[in-house]
Amino acid sequence: MQLQLNCDIGESFGAWTMGMDAEVMPYIDQANIACGFHAGDPLVMQRTVRLALTHDVTLGAHPAYPDLVGFGRRSLSCSPDEVTAMVRYQIGALMSIAAAEGGQIRYVKPHGALYNDMMRAPEILEAVLKALADLPQPLALMAMSTVDNQALRDMAASFSVPLWLEAFADRAYDEAGFLVSRREVGAVHHDQAKIVAQAQSFATGQPIQSHSGQNMLTLEVDTLCVHGDNPESIAAVRAIREALNPSALTSSLTQGDA
Amino acid sequence: MQLQLNCDIGESFGAWTMGMDAEVMPYIDQANIACGFHAGDPLVMQRTVRLALTHDVTLGAHPAYPDLVGFGRRSLSCSPDEVTAMVRYQIGALMSIAAAEGGQIRYVKPHGALYNDMMRAPEILEAVLKALADLPQPLALMAMSTVDNQALRDMAASFSVPLWLEAFADRAYDEAGFLVSRREVGAVHHDQAKIVAQAQSFATGQPIQSHSGQNMLTLEVDTLCVHGDNPESIAAVRAIREALNPSALTSSLTQGDA
Amino acid sequence: MQLQLNCDIGESFGAWTMGMDAEVMPYIDQANIACGFHAGDPLVMQRTVRLALTHDVTLGAHPAYPDLVGFGRRSLSCSPDEVTAMVRYQIGALMSIAAAEGGQIRYVKPHGALYNDMMRAPEILEAVLKALADLPQPLALMAMSTVDNQALRDMAASFSVPLWLEAFADRAYDEAGFLVSRREVGAVHHDQAKIVAQAQSFATGQPIQSHSGQNMLTLEVDTLCVHGDNPESIAAVRAIREALNPSALTSSLTQGDA
Amino acid sequence: MQLQLNCDIGESFGAWTMGMDAEVMPYIDQANIACGFHAGDPLVMQRTVRLALTHDVTLGAHPAYPDLVGFGRRSLSCSPDEVTAMVRYQIGALMSIAAAEGGQIRYVKPHGALYNDMMRAPEILEAVLKALADLPQPLALMAMSTVDNQALRDMAASFSVPLWLEAFADRAYDEAGFLVSRREVGAVHHDQAKIVAQAQSFATGQPIQSHSGQNMLTLEVDTLCVHGDNPESIAAVRAIREALNPSALTSSLTQGDA
Repeated sequence: MQLQLNCDIGESFGAWTMGMDAEVMPYIDQANIACGFHAGDPLVMQRTVRLALTHDVTLGAHPAYPDLVGFGRRSLSCSPDEVTAMVRYQIGALMSIAAAEGGQIRYVKPHGALYNDMMRAPEILEAVLKALADLPQPLALMAMSTVDNQALRDMAASFSVPLWLEAFADRAYDEAGFLVSRREVGAVHHDQAKIVAQAQSFATGQPIQSHSGQNMLTLEVDTLCVHGDNPESIAAVRAIREALNPSALTSSLTQGDA
Repeated sequence: MQLQLNCDIGESFGAWTMGMDAEVMPYIDQANIACGFHAGDPLVMQRTVRLALTHDVTLGAHPAYPDLVGFGRRSLSCSPDEVTAMVRYQIGALMSIAAAEGGQIRYVKPHGALYNDMMRAPEILEAVLKALADLPQPLALMAMSTVDNQALRDMAASFSVPLWLEAFADRAYDEAGFLVSRREVGAVHHDQAKIVAQAQSFATGQPIQSHSGQNMLTLEVDTLCVHGDNPESIAAVRAIREALNPSALTSSLTQGDA
Repeated sequence: MQLQLNCDIGESFGAWTMGMDAEVMPYIDQANIACGFHAGDPLVMQRTVRLALTHDVTLGAHPAYPDLVGFGRRSLSCSPDEVTAMVRYQIGALMSIAAAEGGQIRYVKPHGALYNDMMRAPEILEAVLKALADLPQPLALMAMSTVDNQALRDMAASFSVPLWLEAFADRAYDEAGFLVSRREVGAVHHDQAKIVAQAQSFATGQPIQSHSGQNMLTLEVDTLCVHGDNPESIAAVRAIREALNPSALTSSLTQGDA
Repeated sequence: MQLQLNCDIGESFGAWTMGMDAEVMPYIDQANIACGFHAGDPLVMQRTVRLALTHDVTLGAHPAYPDLVGFGRRSLSCSPDEVTAMVRYQIGALMSIAAAEGGQIRYVKPHGALYNDMMRAPEILEAVLKALADLPQPLALMAMSTVDNQALRDMAASFSVPLWLEAFADRAYDEAGFLVSRREVGAVHHDQAKIVAQAQSFATGQPIQSHSGQNMLTLEVDTLCVHGDNPESIAAVRAIREALNPSALTSSLTQGDA
């Protein structure tokens, strides 16, 4: 499978709009769709599924902690059982909305603090995997690639859940292959050429330079996380798409226009 | 199909307990399970599904307006599209929780104000039916029987949704076959013998007397709505069950004990 | 008191932004601040109060039904006691946030469906007035002016609550002095000259023409409802402000800049 | 001031009932009233304030993280600014409901995870104190007494906020004066005589024995936290009240009956 582009999407809520979903959808492969706990209401979810299906974008569930006001970015000290049940609830909610539109969910990417907690705490990772494993149809888990993904792979395999590893073209990585905190200078790339170059390194399996410049890092990457927040980020996504596989771009845009 | 007993269930929420679910489950056939919008959280839903499956009780979704503080009893002026999407969301959420436990949802009974609005407003009924019709697996709609169910039958048939008609053994009916308002004296039967007698009339297709005593009403009834709120209502359910089909009672209790 | 300009404000929520609050604040006199039930979270409320105080804008509470996803635009069938308690709750929440910033709430304008229900149903109007009357400091009620405000005045007087009557410069009025429904053609004025002219008529006590053109209507108006949603509406507010009292405009802008 | 008894109260929500508020109110001095974020809705708050005023019980606000389904027991990683604003919001909401009933809030006791986070993290303690300090009327903070309260006292003093220190008659304390975790055997006293004895030690300034038995601990205690969850806990409260000051008991009961 060639490198995919995934994007958080469907993050509007009621009267509030967020993100330029219609603009970014033609350039991505995988839509991480908010499920109502941090963003996305039933009508927004329906609209988002329709838009994704129009562009032949793979549907993914983007479950979160129940925290609208904090947009799912604040860690909530839940028990593993609570995590499993809330993830299952959100996946199912999106599944039936997708089914009504003729679509099917293929993967799950936890959102915000839940994603961070899953990467940090094995019991939360296990709780998320459990939610996926017990459903009738197979769902992949999208998680963050680091320099050593073995523990992650082992845990996913123990639940027979496929793992899709993601990386970030616009973020600096530290020596250990973790994202440099946004609080540090240079943590986020703003130069489009630099972003595209990092994307191409991931796509071709080439190492990237660590933030300090002292290390070359090689990450396993199935999918790149891109953003549709504003015109700049969409321009970056388009540039990445053109650099990676311009033919896919053309066909998707044609289809979307039809 | 012999007369079934259905009961609202799974109405606890977080630290708050409501209903005597474990006590009433052995006596019912169909569990109307709250889906998180008026009651029921993901863990409560999971616990409720498990309990129902233990007793071989048919699983139903009990979706509602999003109104925890009002317990879904307050009408909310939603558009039909909002109703369709919110019903689909709740059904799906329960479906995946049920699937993880090896169960499957068979029917939907809207809760509280959404139920009343559906019975009163054709566009809300249509919105609910649309939510059911577009899902992959067939789901029945549980709705209230009146003396003339033709419009209801026609609408459900136009969506190819099976209709399960319910009646109430503990409520008085007016001349037109509608429930007498709870604000009127005698609207709710408290005498167990009277409740059981009315249940038996429904079960055998016999007419019941209207509240005024001037009319005999014959209702088509597939299922009786019973309650598990308190010891009295559970005693009534048990008495109805014994009167209708004591053999089913015995086998369910045995199974539950196993 | 000369004609005031009031505006719904503070309608962002968490990560979602709505309205151009900073742009419209210099031109208005009264800020209807969302209180968390339909929009506005505690931090947004704090930021909004600070902004209003910077521009010497009078603080008002803008309570609503508890309906984030519906933005308080959907009627919820609450009991009068529920309305009184929820209005009081929201006013108090804003009061303490205002107090911490050195400000004080002076009036209350219900939002959306609660406003409409209050204008239509005397028991809801009474419930809202009761919420205001029982607080230690005097609060005015902002409500819609029609051709006959006597019932409204009587009811407010019976609770000793001052009444501030509002009108709309950008809306057509029917014969009876009610707003023409937005679903009808010509219900909303988009021509800035027309909006300013209607504002000036209200300011000088001149009659305006009804939508049909058959009637001249004279409304009692204390305050005009203006909007800060987008650049066009803000241009309209600025034009109204310049037409009504340019000196106030200058001083407010100067103060805001200081 | 003699030793007070404080109790979490008003924890019902909508259709869900929790706690035996009417039964415990005659025996307590201070009511920690839920403010809607973890429990308590506007009508429940109003009912609770009325009940407290009937028994001449001092009103306190019991603010929490916004987490109904978790009952405020799960830590939420909020910024200090978020904590200050949300505490202020909840205090204000209760203040205006109290004011409408002729009552006034005198103190604040954070609930559940917010309480624990405040005791553990100085920046959260500071955020809570800031919320209290900026309000027009003076409010005390109720916090947990340990063997060394100096840091707590200093911080409260820096905001000019009075500090009311609480202890628990039914909980075991470790060597350092912290509560033994509920997960350990013997963490909670169930023997009423033991509970009353520990209460009397606190009331008279006598040391209590640490859980290990190796230490005698002396805690500064202004108020004891008691519980109104069930008949057993209410019996314990009554026994403590009788042991500490039977005369107050008599007068409160008489007043409540009036």
